[in-house]
Amino acid sequence: MTSYLQDGAEIYRRSFATIRAEADLGGLPADVARVAVRMIHACGMVDLVRDIAFSADAVANARAALLAGAPILCDATMVAAGVTRKRLPADNEVVCTLGDSRVPHLAARLETTRSAAAMELWRDHLEGSVVAIGNAPTSLFRLLEMIDAGAPRPAAVLGVPVGFIGAAESKEALAANDLGLEYLVVRGRRGGSAIAAAALNAIASEEE
Amino acid sequence: MTSYLQDGAEIYRRSFATIRAEADLGGLPADVARVAVRMIHACGMVDLVRDIAFSADAVANARAALLAGAPILCDATMVAAGVTRKRLPADNEVVCTLGDSRVPHLAARLETTRSAAAMELWRDHLEGSVVAIGNAPTSLFRLLEMIDAGAPRPAAVLGVPVGFIGAAESKEALAANDLGLEYLVVRGRRGGSAIAAAALNAIASEEE
Repeated sequence: MTSYLQDGAEIYRRSFATIRAEADLGGLPADVARVAVRMIHACGMVDLVRDIAFSADAVANARAALLAGAPILCDATMVAAGVTRKRLPADNEVVCTLGDSRVPHLAARLETTRSAAAMELWRDHLEGSVVAIGNAPTSLFRLLEMIDAGAPRPAAVLGVPVGFIGAAESKEALAANDLGLEYLVVRGRRGGSAIAAAALNAIASEEE
Repeated sequence: MTSYLQDGAEIYRRSFATIRAEADLGGLPADVARVAVRMIHACGMVDLVRDIAFSADAVANARAALLAGAPILCDATMVAAGVTRKRLPADNEVVCTLGDSRVPHLAARLETTRSAAAMELWRDHLEGSVVAIGNAPTSLFRLLEMIDAGAPRPAAVLGVPVGFIGAAESKEALAANDLGLEYLVVRGRRGGSAIAAAALNAIASEEE
């Protein structure tokens, strides 16, 4: 049987050291670099860094919001499951409305996906929140529409939906937003719930 | 505001059509190709297919086990959260022992990670189960050790841990196993809970 490293802390230390040695983090501010390291850790790809785009205050705003007790809004249960509760600075609420019993009816009425319809149930939580979208492009598109139409604004949006239809476009729309929304995205098709949760976890605590 | 496709079924259809057009699925048996498509869908990377390795009966065995009511054993809560319950053919139990209150003590006693220690609590569920490992290399290493030492054997192991320390090695060890374990892996660093859950979901139902 193969021998293997069994010391959890040492595994983390070596993992992050490998990422910092291999990934081209030079162009990133320190706060974004720390988030990028954890996003890379979640997907095993150091070249993810080349697709990360962000607004100047995204990480600082999200961090301040979490410290002040802001809720975390997730588009998918996997993102919510990936948020490490013990890293949260204020026992922050983690909200995912996708499974709400009203969503299928809302989706039918609005003629959209369940993921987009679930955004309607975010309205009461949006003000000053931290949004983590790791699955559905339609969630991100719908959120942008809602804010454009006057819905309350989150402190920052981590936009990492994944896939082949609308994912890249939804993230470009977020990065190009003229709504004053702070954002962090992974351009292109790549993304996913693990990367979104990793970004949130990195912002929630500076512990590596 | 950008216009975007809002018909969920059509988004799925176009996504899978894009993957089948772009991914090199030619070398795969039909059952594995169907699983590969859904794994690619979960990560946005058509070149994932080049790293997929499998034993001949892995998908068929896992499918038969699920139809017969086998439990699904997941190393991480994110994997468990990603299993689409309505796709399961026999209301199969989804087991994740990582959060069990006995795990920290077990990890200290066994001098290993919590992810590896949590495998000890799988023993009563292992026989004929379907294993989906999407996070921790130490879970996969420990599982192989346990089976090598005589623990009951699962029907198949979906081995998709991710990362920089031990991930590639643990998957190579699974693919090279001489225990007669049926397996499906993603070689190298790539993997993760979304890909593991997608593989399980593809096996659970033939519906795209």
